[in-house]
Amino acid sequence: MSEHTSRTELNELGEFGLIERIASRVRLQHASSVKGIGDDAAVYEPRGHQVVTTDMLVEGVHFDLGYVPLKHLGYKSVVVNVSDVLAMNAVPRRITVSVALSNRFPVEAIDELYEGVLLACTNYGVDLVGGDTCSSPSGLVISVTAIGEAAPEELVYRSGARDNDLLVVSGDLGGAFMGLQVLEREKAVFKETGAQPDLTGHDYILERQLKPEARQDITALLQQLGVRPTAMIDISDGLASEAIHIARSSGLGVRIYDEKIPIDPSTYDAARAFNLDPSTCALNGGEDYELLFTVAQADYERIKGNPSITVIGHMTDQASGHHLVDKQGGLHELRAQGWDAFLRR
Amino acid sequence: MSEHTSRTELNELGEFGLIERIASRVRLQHASSVKGIGDDAAVYEPRGHQVVTTDMLVEGVHFDLGYVPLKHLGYKSVVVNVSDVLAMNAVPRRITVSVALSNRFPVEAIDELYEGVLLACTNYGVDLVGGDTCSSPSGLVISVTAIGEAAPEELVYRSGARDNDLLVVSGDLGGAFMGLQVLEREKAVFKETGAQPDLTGHDYILERQLKPEARQDITALLQQLGVRPTAMIDISDGLASEAIHIARSSGLGVRIYDEKIPIDPSTYDAARAFNLDPSTCALNGGEDYELLFTVAQADYERIKGNPSITVIGHMTDQASGHHLVDKQGGLHELRAQGWDAFLRR
Repeated sequence: MSEHTSRTELNELGEFGLIERIASRVRLQHASSVKGIGDDAAVYEPRGHQVVTTDMLVEGVHFDLGYVPLKHLGYKSVVVNVSDVLAMNAVPRRITVSVALSNRFPVEAIDELYEGVLLACTNYGVDLVGGDTCSSPSGLVISVTAIGEAAPEELVYRSGARDNDLLVVSGDLGGAFMGLQVLEREKAVFKETGAQPDLTGHDYILERQLKPEARQDITALLQQLGVRPTAMIDISDGLASEAIHIARSSGLGVRIYDEKIPIDPSTYDAARAFNLDPSTCALNGGEDYELLFTVAQADYERIKGNPSITVIGHMTDQASGHHLVDKQGGLHELRAQGWDAFLRR
Repeated sequence: MSEHTSRTELNELGEFGLIERIASRVRLQHASSVKGIGDDAAVYEPRGHQVVTTDMLVEGVHFDLGYVPLKHLGYKSVVVNVSDVLAMNAVPRRITVSVALSNRFPVEAIDELYEGVLLACTNYGVDLVGGDTCSSPSGLVISVTAIGEAAPEELVYRSGARDNDLLVVSGDLGGAFMGLQVLEREKAVFKETGAQPDLTGHDYILERQLKPEARQDITALLQQLGVRPTAMIDISDGLASEAIHIARSSGLGVRIYDEKIPIDPSTYDAARAFNLDPSTCALNGGEDYELLFTVAQADYERIKGNPSITVIGHMTDQASGHHLVDKQGGLHELRAQGWDAFLRR
C-alpha cells in the first residue's frame, strides 16, 4: 500500500458516510442509467438483450496487497468483468461494486481503490450504479457485477463454433503470468534479504499483470471488418482451458499450432530466465484477458495480416480431440491446467 | 453446521466441477432467461425498466455459522436482495450468487448453502443465472446481485413522499433483532457452561432472524388495492433509519407514533426479558425486511383495517424534523442508530 499523507479511520465516517463519499465522485455517463447509488436499487432503461456477469476477488487468493496498488486493484476488478461482457460480443454499460474491508484500511485507501474503479468506468464507458460496503474480519474482498447489452443477433456464445472454423486470439499471451512470477520472486527476495524489488526491464509484463485491459477495441474492430465470431471467450484461465471450453460447448475438437501462439519478446525472455517454456505460460498462465474466438474460413481474407489478432489453429470434429500441434507436426493433448482456485490452495 | 453423512473435499471437485454441480441443480423459470450458467455471461431479455441491487454477507460480521444453518444462510442471502427489488415496487427476476469459501467446507456444505439459495429462487420466482465460486483464506463470503423489472411508471423511489402522506409499514418489527439476542445469549451460555441452547418458545423471533421473508405479497396487495406508494424502502437497518431515509430523500420531516408501531407479542416478551424497550428494538434493530412506504391521505380508505399493514405516522414539512411521538404526545428526535457495519466492529 502506498503511503498516505493523512489517515481517516473508517469508523469516523460510518457506512452511510462512506457510501456518500463514493457516490459524490460518480458521474453517470448514460442517460439510460435512470437512478444510480442512493435508493434500494439502481434503475436503468435497457436497450436490447442484457448480459450479466460477476467476479469476486479475494485478498490472499487473487491479489497480494504487498505488491498490488489499490488503484490498480480497483481498475482490474472492473476490467475482468468488462472482459466477460465483451466475450459475449456485448457492450458493457453498468457495474455494481461491493467491497468488504477491515478497519486496518483508512478511508484514503478506499479512495484509491475507487479511483481505479472509476478510471476503468471512464475508459470502458460503464456507469457505477450501485454496490455494497461492509466490514470484514480480516482481508479485502471485492465483488463486481457487470451488465452489458446487445441486439440478440449480435450475441456470441461459446457454443457457436463449427468444424473447420479458424481459432483466433487477440494480442499476445503469457505476459500476465510472467509478470506475476517476477512480482512473487521479488517479494520472496525482499522477505529473505530486505532488498528493494528490482523490476527494471519488466514494464510490459508487470502492466499485463497489474493493469490488464479488456479488448473493447477488438470487438469494435471485428464489427468494422464485418466479421462476426461464431464463438468467443475471454482468456482468464489460460489459452488451453478456454480453447477446450469453446470446443466442448460447441461439440467439437480443436487444434492449436504452437508456433502460431503470439508471445511478446519480453514475456519470452522472462519465461526463459525462469526456466519456463514460453508456450506453456501462454497455454496455462491465464489472466491475459485477451479474446479467443472462432470465425468461418470464409472470413480469413478479412482478418489476415491484422496486427491485433492472430490465427492460431482451427476447430475439428469432436472425435479428433483437443491438441497442441508442435513444429514437427506432432500432436500433444491439450489439458486445462489453468488457474483453479481450489487446487492452488 | 449440521452433520454430514459423507464428506467430499472441495479440491477433489475443483472449481469447474463445483460450478457444474451447482448448474445441474438449477432450473430456469423464465423464458426470458435466454442463457444461464455456462458462458462468459448470462443473457436475458428485459421487459420494462430494470433494477439492480447487490448485498454482501461476510462470516463473522453478518452471520455466525455457530448458529446459522447454511441452508438458511443461502435463503437469507437471496431474500435480502429480493427485498430491495420489491422496495422499488419492481418484480425480482434474476440473481447471481458469488461465494468465497475455504477448504474447511466440504462439498456437502456448499450443497446445503445452494439448497437454500435455490429454495428462495423457487419461492420468489427468480432465476439463478450466474455467479462465481472462489477460494477464501478463512471465512465464508456471499455476494448476491438481484435484477428485477417494472414499467417505469410503476417504480417507487425513496424520494417520492409528499407532505402529509401516511407512513405505513408491513408486518411487525423488532423480531429479527430479538431472535439474534436469543441466539447470542445461548451461544454465550454454551461457551461458558457447555449447556445445550434452550430456544423453546422463541420460534417466531428465531425464524424472523434466521429465515426472513421478503414481502412480495405486500407489493401484490397494494397493486390489488389500487394503491401506489409515493415512496418505499425496505427495513434492513431499523425503522428509524429507514424513515429518515425517506424523509431526507423526499425533502420532508416525519412523525412516527410509538403506540402504532406493530410489535408481535413474542418480540415484546423477549424484549422485556432482556430488559430492552420493545419500541427501541423495532426502531433500531433492523433485519426485519418489512416494507416501509408512504401513501397519499386519499388512499387511507383503501388500506385501513388490512391486517398486513399498519399506518404508523405521517410525513411533515422538512422544518418539523424527524420525531417519535410518545403516548402523551411528547416529541423525541428520531436517530438512525441502525446497524452500521463499521461502527459495530
